[in-house]
Amino acid sequence: MLDLEFTIQEGKLYMLQTRVGKRTGIAAVKIAVDMVKEGLISKQEAVQRIGPDQLAQYLYPIFDSQEEARANPLGKGLPAGPGAAAGKIALTPDRAVDMKTAGNRVILVRQETSPDDIHGMNASAGFLTARGGMTSHAAVVARQMGKVCVAGCEAVEVLDSQTVRVGTKTFREGEYVSINGSNGNVYEGDIPVVESEIIQVIQGKLDPKRSDKYQRFSTILAWADGFRKLRVRANADVPEQGRIARGFGAEGIGLCRTEHMFFAEDRTPIMQKMILARTKEEREKYLGQLLPLQKQDFVGLYREMQGFPVTIRLLDPPLHEFLPKREELMVEIAQLELTGCDRARLQEKRQLLARVEELHEFNPMLGLRGCRLGITMPEITRMQARAIMEAACELAKENKKIVPEIMIPLVGMVSEMKAQKDLVREVAQETMKRHNIKFSYLVGTMIELPRAAVTADLIAQEAEFFSFGTNDLTQTTFGFSRDDAAKFIDHYRTSHIMELDPFAVLDQEGVGSLMRQAIVAGQKTRPGIKLGICGEHGGDPSSVEFCHLLGLDYVSCSPYRVAIARLAAAHAALAEEHEKTTRKLPLRLTAKPRKAGHRGRRIPSSNARKTR
Amino acid sequence: MLDLEFTIQEGKLYMLQTRVGKRTGIAAVKIAVDMVKEGLISKQEAVQRIGPDQLAQYLYPIFDSQEEARANPLGKGLPAGPGAAAGKIALTPDRAVDMKTAGNRVILVRQETSPDDIHGMNASAGFLTARGGMTSHAAVVARQMGKVCVAGCEAVEVLDSQTVRVGTKTFREGEYVSINGSNGNVYEGDIPVVESEIIQVIQGKLDPKRSDKYQRFSTILAWADGFRKLRVRANADVPEQGRIARGFGAEGIGLCRTEHMFFAEDRTPIMQKMILARTKEEREKYLGQLLPLQKQDFVGLYREMQGFPVTIRLLDPPLHEFLPKREELMVEIAQLELTGCDRARLQEKRQLLARVEELHEFNPMLGLRGCRLGITMPEITRMQARAIMEAACELAKENKKIVPEIMIPLVGMVSEMKAQKDLVREVAQETMKRHNIKFSYLVGTMIELPRAAVTADLIAQEAEFFSFGTNDLTQTTFGFSRDDAAKFIDHYRTSHIMELDPFAVLDQEGVGSLMRQAIVAGQKTRPGIKLGICGEHGGDPSSVEFCHLLGLDYVSCSPYRVAIARLAAAHAALAEEHEKTTRKLPLRLTAKPRKAGHRGRRIPSSNARKTR
Repeated sequence: MLDLEFTIQEGKLYMLQTRVGKRTGIAAVKIAVDMVKEGLISKQEAVQRIGPDQLAQYLYPIFDSQEEARANPLGKGLPAGPGAAAGKIALTPDRAVDMKTAGNRVILVRQETSPDDIHGMNASAGFLTARGGMTSHAAVVARQMGKVCVAGCEAVEVLDSQTVRVGTKTFREGEYVSINGSNGNVYEGDIPVVESEIIQVIQGKLDPKRSDKYQRFSTILAWADGFRKLRVRANADVPEQGRIARGFGAEGIGLCRTEHMFFAEDRTPIMQKMILARTKEEREKYLGQLLPLQKQDFVGLYREMQGFPVTIRLLDPPLHEFLPKREELMVEIAQLELTGCDRARLQEKRQLLARVEELHEFNPMLGLRGCRLGITMPEITRMQARAIMEAACELAKENKKIVPEIMIPLVGMVSEMKAQKDLVREVAQETMKRHNIKFSYLVGTMIELPRAAVTADLIAQEAEFFSFGTNDLTQTTFGFSRDDAAKFIDHYRTSHIMELDPFAVLDQEGVGSLMRQAIVAGQKTRPGIKLGICGEHGGDPSSVEFCHLLGLDYVSCSPYRVAIARLAAAHAALAEEHEKTTRKLPLRLTAKPRKAGHRGRRIPSSNARKTR
Repeated sequence: MLDLEFTIQEGKLYMLQTRVGKRTGIAAVKIAVDMVKEGLISKQEAVQRIGPDQLAQYLYPIFDSQEEARANPLGKGLPAGPGAAAGKIALTPDRAVDMKTAGNRVILVRQETSPDDIHGMNASAGFLTARGGMTSHAAVVARQMGKVCVAGCEAVEVLDSQTVRVGTKTFREGEYVSINGSNGNVYEGDIPVVESEIIQVIQGKLDPKRSDKYQRFSTILAWADGFRKLRVRANADVPEQGRIARGFGAEGIGLCRTEHMFFAEDRTPIMQKMILARTKEEREKYLGQLLPLQKQDFVGLYREMQGFPVTIRLLDPPLHEFLPKREELMVEIAQLELTGCDRARLQEKRQLLARVEELHEFNPMLGLRGCRLGITMPEITRMQARAIMEAACELAKENKKIVPEIMIPLVGMVSEMKAQKDLVREVAQETMKRHNIKFSYLVGTMIELPRAAVTADLIAQEAEFFSFGTNDLTQTTFGFSRDDAAKFIDHYRTSHIMELDPFAVLDQEGVGSLMRQAIVAGQKTRPGIKLGICGEHGGDPSSVEFCHLLGLDYVSCSPYRVAIARLAAAHAALAEEHEKTTRKLPLRLTAKPRKAGHRGRRIPSSNARKTR
């Protein structure tokens, strides 16, 4: 589809210029699929003509374009969870739940979100936060849940528990706001939203045969699958997310974050009691209550994945994430002391604070988390290993094939890996013996610390697979906190210190160099070791291309990015093929892209030239 | 000096066995020096017979041994600042200052210390903390100031603002306690302390000619200097520390932390105003007030160092370290709200809290600090560069030789290095022009992030020297927070996950591997680039040996560890010589010591076999 410019002068036609016409992603797919059917281009050309990010337009609800054009933006934040959503403002997660229960569409507006807000986030159509970057809690959860999110919108100021200002306009809770998570705009009022047909099909609300859009979307992806070499998995924590991931064509789960199962409302109290327990025995009692719940989660996930691999990561976050906030307790205690009426409550809060103080850390990201939890409290690892294996036994008894992949987080030393692996193996053997059943399973690790990357040859002596946790690896390689860095990353980008946010687009020069070292060293010790990536980068096209060049086996990304990753993986394979045949460049690991500074420029691919 | 076992049987003498006799460090030096004088051993043998850590015994005050034997320990913490100290308990830094002013010896007892406590730490003979590891704030400051410190003593419980319990005994502020920072013991009462003669000489309180101990100490070190190849510098922030460093033979300052100059009582208020400033203009006003103070500090340091190099690091810590604590402000505000009497004060506190909230970070270690400050607020870098150059001009006018080395902290990308270097160069040229004077200076960087290590070839395009900041590099390589990791590092050591604290003894396998990469890459870009280390490891003998093998130009350590580093550097050179001649091992960078797990075993050195 081309724009043509021409003129007719003195009866003669002059063709002045022609260029590829601009089109939306949805139009691009339709044109490409139609042209293949008309025999004008090959399937490969069709696949190469669609930019992976263009597929995203299929997936998100969008505002009615005429209505949005009429609306006046009150402020602009980061487009952290694409799509469009409109609803009544809720300022706390509890009120979001109440408003949703009463039948409203809800937009949760917060200074920033935390794991405590999950129930409110679940109840909302979208989130709007005043603080936080592209990988803040709200942003990551939004992309994983497939919700709309505008994060770090400086125009937002929560005035009190009932009112919030956005730019020039002050809203009371319950008034309507509309957010566009694809461009970051925030509008007053209730702009009509058009739902994605693809999502409706995947959720079983629309017959795929009745959606031309879905048919074309699937066609392009099926063609893409014929070219790609990378497998594509999804990061999914609960069966529901697993089902959506399968709908998008995920070939397994690359990261199940087991802690997310504990944030459910009925489980947090047990988890809190477990953390507050003073003795191992007391801790084991509460872990025993969590065991059947966790087992059922895994059974559900395994079922959804129908034999595809499921990688389960053991408990990772610092424990105080499950407890009330320290400063809030301190304020509450100071207030109780002054009013002096409720002695029992004061006593209780003081005890809670004492434990929170014990767990308090100056830099929780670098503290007691990951495998450090499982090593200092082996009973947690034991419970989780048992839940994973019990669930696998249940499916094995139904003659369903299942190969659990158990992943130890935040390993920096082979001694940590060995200690946790020994523990997991012990529980696994014992569980299989008790059920009189045998099947294979893998115990591997995240590579998410620089030390793990540079000692990967040693770690591979114990680890049966590596999964690159590039979120954390980016944090420690740069010394950037995901939660805090947005402030100066923005400044760095405007002043051209760096061109791209390394939490969104993999830093090939620094983080990539450590990945490369880890792969070479790991393969030396354990030839053919299974390699994957499960950071947010697994869904970013240029990062997927890099992963292909590194020779990874799979990328794992948010369920909603699976289709994008499938297409990006096809592009990567085709681009490599093209370079091989035309330029004879050194390929794979030896092809080390290097540029001055962290510019993170995308590797030029043949398709980039063709589709732009 | 040997122990001999013999017997006489039926008039015949049987020599049964003999072994090297145990001796204190002080005795070891005396024996070695005497034996050289008697022509029994060579100077090299004498040097090799003294373990570097044995020299430490010369430097610290010790308890009267009979009195200590009689005393009953109430608890045991980490021996974080060696030596012995006794004094009256102060529970806040302000009271420590008051008690010291009233003529008392003071022991500051705290839950943990922070930069706000510096004035109280200065006034105290020693610190006792309930929390924190070998590299907690109290421990690091103690070793740098040469104060006694017992850190992380679990027996300590601060009960209220007036009382503290240590084990079974409850103390009121002002009662006597005695702490042994060499073994971690805490005693009741006032045990008499014997001062170090070496320190007395260096402080000018004792004529060196009147101290045999000092003579022998200097003799061994002079002999050691004849063998070593590494230069030894000191980490010193103020002229006083520089003088002590010179007394111990430091050949320059490897790290001057400029922020320590701002913690002085007359400067913190200006610093706070600078941070709270809303505009660049306002910030520049307060920076202008800090400029002459900072310049005078540098003049003092240069003078003390008598032409030796002085490496000055630009502002590094997160700014909220200079402000009141967030949770304390929140509590204060909650109290003011309830009592409701002081409206003006409430308003002021709320404004302060708002700014503190803006600066608040979840992981300050990975936040807005290091060169990120200088890049987002270039006026800070400008002020500091000007102070450094003005001071150098002043000395140059007196015809004193001075080569300032300006160090950019926390660089991860060459673009950061370039931006800061350009700024420094601009100010430097302008200052020299104004004073009509010209001299050379260097602009280099810390290598303290994994990304800096793996992209060192690029960073060396701009950086004129590298100084390995192994404290931070250990934090990011392991993903361990120095302030928080003590808890699980202790567990890791008792359960043999790791044998040594990587903050005390350099992790050659992981951190060392990154250092090696950085050196190879940096030298490739800039042959002969000056290389040093300025982390706490610069004063640890096995780490000094590793630095020698890496081919660094110098190590920089706490002033009180300079003598130890000098001896360790001699041992390293002699051991390498020995290996070269006897075993023909590959040497320097190619000698890559590798063991399974982070065991951090010391490189076997010939001397280790001889002196044990």
